[in-house]
Amino acid sequence: MPRGRPRAMGAAALLLLLLLLGFLLFGWDLGCERHKQGGRAGAPGCFPGPLMPRVPPDGRLRRAAALDGDPGAGPGDHNRSNCGPPPPRPSKCELLHVAIVCAGHNSSRDVITLVKSMLFYRKNPLHLHLVTDAVARNILEMLFHTWMVPAVRVSFYNAEELKSQVSWIPNKHYSGLYGLMKLVLPSALPAELAHVIVLDTDVTFASDISELWALFAHFSDTQAIGLVENQSDWYLGNLWKNHRPWPALGRGFNTGVILLRLDRLRQAGWEQMWRLTARRELLTLPATSLADQDIFNAVIKEHPGLVQPLPCVWNVQLSDHTLAERCYSAASDLKVIHWNSPKKLQVKNKHVEFFRNLYLTFLEYDGNLLRRELFGCPSQPPPGAEQLQQALAQLDEEDPCFEFRQQQLTVHRVHVTFLPHEPPPPRPHDVTLVAQLSMDRLQMLEALCRHWPGPMSLALYLTDAEAQQFLRFIEASPVLAARQDVAYHVVYREGPLYPVNQLRNVALAQALTPYVFLSDIDFLPAYSLYDYLRASIEQLGLGSQRKAALVVPAFETLHYRFSFPHSKVELLALLDVGALYTFRYHEWPRGHAPTDYARWREAQAPYRVQWAADYEPYVVVPRDCPRYDPRFVGFGWNKVAHIVELDAQEYELLVLPEAFTIHLPHAPSLDISRFRSSPTYRDCLRALKDEFHQDLSRHHGAAALKYLRALQQPQSPARG
Amino acid sequence: MPRGRPRAMGAAALLLLLLLLGFLLFGWDLGCERHKQGGRAGAPGCFPGPLMPRVPPDGRLRRAAALDGDPGAGPGDHNRSNCGPPPPRPSKCELLHVAIVCAGHNSSRDVITLVKSMLFYRKNPLHLHLVTDAVARNILEMLFHTWMVPAVRVSFYNAEELKSQVSWIPNKHYSGLYGLMKLVLPSALPAELAHVIVLDTDVTFASDISELWALFAHFSDTQAIGLVENQSDWYLGNLWKNHRPWPALGRGFNTGVILLRLDRLRQAGWEQMWRLTARRELLTLPATSLADQDIFNAVIKEHPGLVQPLPCVWNVQLSDHTLAERCYSAASDLKVIHWNSPKKLQVKNKHVEFFRNLYLTFLEYDGNLLRRELFGCPSQPPPGAEQLQQALAQLDEEDPCFEFRQQQLTVHRVHVTFLPHEPPPPRPHDVTLVAQLSMDRLQMLEALCRHWPGPMSLALYLTDAEAQQFLRFIEASPVLAARQDVAYHVVYREGPLYPVNQLRNVALAQALTPYVFLSDIDFLPAYSLYDYLRASIEQLGLGSQRKAALVVPAFETLHYRFSFPHSKVELLALLDVGALYTFRYHEWPRGHAPTDYARWREAQAPYRVQWAADYEPYVVVPRDCPRYDPRFVGFGWNKVAHIVELDAQEYELLVLPEAFTIHLPHAPSLDISRFRSSPTYRDCLRALKDEFHQDLSRHHGAAALKYLRALQQPQSPARG
Repeated sequence: MPRGRPRAMGAAALLLLLLLLGFLLFGWDLGCERHKQGGRAGAPGCFPGPLMPRVPPDGRLRRAAALDGDPGAGPGDHNRSNCGPPPPRPSKCELLHVAIVCAGHNSSRDVITLVKSMLFYRKNPLHLHLVTDAVARNILEMLFHTWMVPAVRVSFYNAEELKSQVSWIPNKHYSGLYGLMKLVLPSALPAELAHVIVLDTDVTFASDISELWALFAHFSDTQAIGLVENQSDWYLGNLWKNHRPWPALGRGFNTGVILLRLDRLRQAGWEQMWRLTARRELLTLPATSLADQDIFNAVIKEHPGLVQPLPCVWNVQLSDHTLAERCYSAASDLKVIHWNSPKKLQVKNKHVEFFRNLYLTFLEYDGNLLRRELFGCPSQPPPGAEQLQQALAQLDEEDPCFEFRQQQLTVHRVHVTFLPHEPPPPRPHDVTLVAQLSMDRLQMLEALCRHWPGPMSLALYLTDAEAQQFLRFIEASPVLAARQDVAYHVVYREGPLYPVNQLRNVALAQALTPYVFLSDIDFLPAYSLYDYLRASIEQLGLGSQRKAALVVPAFETLHYRFSFPHSKVELLALLDVGALYTFRYHEWPRGHAPTDYARWREAQAPYRVQWAADYEPYVVVPRDCPRYDPRFVGFGWNKVAHIVELDAQEYELLVLPEAFTIHLPHAPSLDISRFRSSPTYRDCLRALKDEFHQDLSRHHGAAALKYLRALQQPQSPARG
Repeated sequence: MPRGRPRAMGAAALLLLLLLLGFLLFGWDLGCERHKQGGRAGAPGCFPGPLMPRVPPDGRLRRAAALDGDPGAGPGDHNRSNCGPPPPRPSKCELLHVAIVCAGHNSSRDVITLVKSMLFYRKNPLHLHLVTDAVARNILEMLFHTWMVPAVRVSFYNAEELKSQVSWIPNKHYSGLYGLMKLVLPSALPAELAHVIVLDTDVTFASDISELWALFAHFSDTQAIGLVENQSDWYLGNLWKNHRPWPALGRGFNTGVILLRLDRLRQAGWEQMWRLTARRELLTLPATSLADQDIFNAVIKEHPGLVQPLPCVWNVQLSDHTLAERCYSAASDLKVIHWNSPKKLQVKNKHVEFFRNLYLTFLEYDGNLLRRELFGCPSQPPPGAEQLQQALAQLDEEDPCFEFRQQQLTVHRVHVTFLPHEPPPPRPHDVTLVAQLSMDRLQMLEALCRHWPGPMSLALYLTDAEAQQFLRFIEASPVLAARQDVAYHVVYREGPLYPVNQLRNVALAQALTPYVFLSDIDFLPAYSLYDYLRASIEQLGLGSQRKAALVVPAFETLHYRFSFPHSKVELLALLDVGALYTFRYHEWPRGHAPTDYARWREAQAPYRVQWAADYEPYVVVPRDCPRYDPRFVGFGWNKVAHIVELDAQEYELLVLPEAFTIHLPHAPSLDISRFRSSPTYRDCLRALKDEFHQDLSRHHGAAALKYLRALQQPQSPARG
């Protein structure tokens, strides 16, 4: 019976009575008219009971919430009237709470897909309670911060601190220790939180979560845990000879989707309850096989009054030998699907194509589209969103540089360490290669990995769908899959201009070594460069004694097929026969002229060079170097401005005599070619440069005069 | 009042009575409990009336279906009880009929987005009735044929044949003559069709169409047209001085979404009715301003009993000064949105971001995912789907070439002439350049257009989202946007291997000139080639007198920057200084050796050459030439097999002395690089070649022996 204020209860009671009268007079058939073939006319008042999926069209009235007809086997009394009252929905703007335990890189990706599916259908404000390890927190905190979804609040809880509470339980399940943490949520979540939906990371929503939340209203006064029955025979204990599962009621319950009345569990002494049960069972059982699920089931077997069975459509379990098919009769019945096989999407069952499509929908769904306002529900805007809206509103749409200014303000969703990543061990002179790319440069990655054996931090500018293509690309490459020291950070595409410096800053911020080599993706460094740089950093006392940027001289080949030089001697020979050139020798020698290639030919030791206008060398600097100026979007002046900033902050420019890097030819990227021919493009770039110099003067005063003077010289064309 | 069989009617009446009693006892407030803040408990039996959106949470009970409080201004009596009976839904597997008028390339793209939104939410089988011009039919017939969506039937009706019925009406609306065709649907659609939902191409679904269909049940015995009131003041006639719209009830109705009882309209003499009204109004009004909508409204003003007003959420109209905001109070209210401004997505209104997101969701949605089975509803599989399923089921997953075989069988969705296209005028010796590409070669298009001034037929292998990027790319390029003779055919991506020959066949099948130049996207033809080929075809009497393939000798540059030769003399000079090479001179001279470049240097007239193993020249052939063998997916032997087939069918190979085409260097595409290194790749390619030769022997008998013998020679590596 629904609980509510007295007046509503009285009303509900009377209405129920009246409805009952209707049933007595017209029989069961009445209310179910509309389920029948051709019954478009239908009768009012008929809704599938909240605890039962709809009756299949063939009229078979079967017990659908429990998996078979044996009343002894299935737990709970969920075989209520099929035409009961409609499920009460939470009020329109009620805040719904969801808790998820998440650890590691792969689970973080899963959580995002789950959240996308939830957001797609949700109509209520949400508060996500994420119990995470350090890796997942790092990823998800940045993701939600940059996602800026209206009416979504996120709180983090440190899984490390909870570990000790469950680490004593021997566990054989693939979810590891983290699977067990659902047990301690009543104490880990805030004391004032009374209701929460707990989800595994491998579930996908196919409906509005408020419908699930509404099932709390069906709990009796003592029920505290809402669960769906298991759709496999595991707990029946007859899968193989001597198969001895943990105790459970019948098939037991699956803990992929849980409705928790935290208040009641706390009152009932849940902490002690599950510990006692677990300790006792572990006297005879060696370990949990299914993590928290074993313990939940053992507790429920002892205290069956705690559990409210939920309709099976709220946790359609897609394991290999699933009985889930008995649960749903049509696609419209599905509410939540649960990829609870270790095979995940490779699992086989009759409708797996359908389920996979649903999952892929959200996997590849453009998360930017979920930033849509939850209008009708007033809510606190996400941090930073209001200022952003104001700044965007102040832009002049008639300004020819409007697109540039809009792009500069865009906050891109950022998913750092998209793939498993092992941070490099702390070494005082280690260097991370930093670069950025989009889909059309993925082919560079293998070669880059062969040339640079050290850590890399790469920002990738991708759509959600491209991120999945990227994932498959890495998995298909033995070279790339083997590298755990390359961190890939996905920055999601938004807007027409390539945010080159924002991408560089993301990659730079995620570098974990004391030094960084600021490179571009179409360059291959000398095979020896990684070792040589570390040795040079140590010898020169970079960072601690000297504030310097080490210049790596840049060359280029115009040949598509090209044999990479193994030494400076080989490089010079190629240069002499015209198989190599200094970088942009033909079109734009100013960009690297200060490197002084003639001197470099002969140099035996690092030598200092002076900044000059338009200088844009590739440099090695301490990780705490100035960031790139994010105002430069599209292609032009983005590196030049960074070198100006380094010079203004008095970094010495030291050219390394044995270092080199070579640019490979490629067709211009789409992002470049779209704008190179634009007539307003150069004007806008000039405006950006002017503003950059104004800011420079503000920060550095008279010292910035030399850059302004340099600007008076013939203008440089728009370049990258 | 809902209509149904007598028993259901009696039941409904009694239940209404009982509900009324409830209201009398507990007041209006009772049933709406659940809409209130925090009212999770709620009272059973409360549903928003089908003809009214929900009451907003602030409790303001306003007349939401009509746009303002003036009872005289809004048509219809849709201000019923807010807590009436729930809308009856069509029975689970009832077939719903939808009619759409569609003409031209751009509307065809719109229809596809509309259909995607409909399919995403639908839970019923659908029958689409498409009234199309020849262009739209060509596009949509191929699209639906290759889409193979289960439980969707499509019928086409020839708009040209209906034109005469409406062409006498002067019309100023941007939809042109096709807008008016909705008027003739009762006679144009099959006589046995009684109910149909009629949609404009610029609507987007945000809900299950069966909920809209269910509103038919609310029609009285005489009502025949379900419409939503206009959400603008147009028909009030006070927008400007002397603004004289067509007659309408109050704000009139919008015809973007119509529920038509065709049976009743036919009975009521609709044909005569609207014609009489239109003729009479045209005596004093110069033309229709809003096409069919003016006439529907004028008829309704005369026969108000025909119309059943629908809740405004079923046609939320997003024009510039829309009053739509008065209609919905929250995102959850929206059912169908209607981009009924000529500005479409550029329109401005308060929630346009939200609406745009919804639209973009479906615009970029992977249509392949909508192929999901409508399980629970038995339905005739789409043509070819069963054979395809069987063939796929017969594949052996353990076969190392499984991916190849699966890819060969894949039926890709094909959207021909994705962009507006003007077929070339019929000219007896005209040649179309045929090629295929994916996203990473878009940059080639501008240069190609400069080199080839004639018609082109290009197949693009894209995702749905990439197709939109492609669209923006074309729009942003003045060179490309100006070319109406380039036909772009989108083949939607599916599977891991690039279906190169399937793409070539799509482009080839869509070429409309008598001859085709079978090229590749990374080649630029000589500037004069188009003219020269047409002259050569004429001179040689190709096609009519001679069965020949004209060979265009292929060269390559290894330089990324390169000045294209303007004549054969210039080309030979570049060849002599090593700035150019014959194509794949270094790695695979066999591919083009039979062209005999030495002879070509001196040749003044076309000369015949003999086929040899691995020959893969670029050729000009009649359009009815053999198709490419679709078994070759990925990269390797795909062109070679085609030349074998030409030779087997006794095409003469004639090298043209002044023709040339030059390959530009580029990084290997993702699709290539993914498989080049694969160890099983070569084995599978060998297996494919063997099967190809077996088929060749079957078709050509002893004549095919020479190809088998050639195969005994040292194997060629896997190449493109």
